[in-house]
Amino acid sequence: MVNYPNGKKKTYVTQRTSAGGRGMNLEKDINTTNMFYLSIDKAVIHKKPTPVTIVSVDYPARSAAKITEAYFKLPSTTDYNGIYRAKYIDFEAKECASHTSFPLKSIHEHQIKHLQDVIRHGAIAFLIVKWTVFDETYFVKAEDIITFMKENERHSIPYTWFQTTGHLIPSTYVTPIDYLKIIDQLYFTLGGNHDKSK
Amino acid sequence: MVNYPNGKKKTYVTQRTSAGGRGMNLEKDINTTNMFYLSIDKAVIHKKPTPVTIVSVDYPARSAAKITEAYFKLPSTTDYNGIYRAKYIDFEAKECASHTSFPLKSIHEHQIKHLQDVIRHGAIAFLIVKWTVFDETYFVKAEDIITFMKENERHSIPYTWFQTTGHLIPSTYVTPIDYLKIIDQLYFTLGGNHDKSK
Repeated sequence: MVNYPNGKKKTYVTQRTSAGGRGMNLEKDINTTNMFYLSIDKAVIHKKPTPVTIVSVDYPARSAAKITEAYFKLPSTTDYNGIYRAKYIDFEAKECASHTSFPLKSIHEHQIKHLQDVIRHGAIAFLIVKWTVFDETYFVKAEDIITFMKENERHSIPYTWFQTTGHLIPSTYVTPIDYLKIIDQLYFTLGGNHDKSK
Repeated sequence: MVNYPNGKKKTYVTQRTSAGGRGMNLEKDINTTNMFYLSIDKAVIHKKPTPVTIVSVDYPARSAAKITEAYFKLPSTTDYNGIYRAKYIDFEAKECASHTSFPLKSIHEHQIKHLQDVIRHGAIAFLIVKWTVFDETYFVKAEDIITFMKENERHSIPYTWFQTTGHLIPSTYVTPIDYLKIIDQLYFTLGGNHDKSK
């Protein structure tokens, strides 16, 4: 139980955890991984704050400004960016609860446009998709997702496509989503499987 | 007057504007500039959302989730980042109302640490400081600010230092804070004044 400053308690929700004891929360796992990368000075990659539109703020005497009315806003970019081996890194992370396919509607159109934009400028851009049922997390190059969307009328991408075109991300206790391993293989290894999807 | 969905009207506040007609709002000017850069496909640089800690959210039937209690959080990184000419770009922007000196307390310690972190990994990192009294906006390399802080006990940086070590940012109607001009000179020009501060 966690006590919050407002005296409320957070209800503990039992989660199915994997054999490795990992929780189901992809965002938490990526943040843990990024904090570890930062702590060993391997990369500087952060999640952007959740965008909100603030409508009203109270300024009570002698205490912190309190936002009393705000709304969630659609993000215009992806959730994560930063720098690794002097390269600009940009990605979005999604959990998928299906057994069979990943719904493309979970990535917004302006996020796809953003990924295309940064790719043109030389970024390493990708998606991290966690298949919660299988407890498997795939690294997918943004280029491959974009090609799929152009070549297919489908509104979802089959699981088998992730198995063939994606890259299974390894996991350790300190780096639950060790995606830089995949980046090393794909972008920094001579003769790496950069062209797996071709 | 702008009408907001909640029926409230935004009060129009008269602002002192400069001879060039620019408003005093640095953030707005940088956003305008970044939107222009994006529109001509020159760079992809965005302001990160303001970080807030959300405490409670209402989910009224048939309408959008409403955040009813939230607080501003200290940012752990800088406000702006993105990609330009395949380089990772990272900066913070500050307005300064003084005639004489820029207070260093307006940059948080973890923001300085963040700038040091990204520099080590190969970023172009800097500060944009607008001296509102003079209507002058300077580009200052993060390295130069960090060196100043190491070599001086002062809690502020004199205006004259900005004149000698900083770089005055040009302004046009579509790019009110045309900072990529300075980046081109400092980082992409052979024989550019990269070492002005030395």
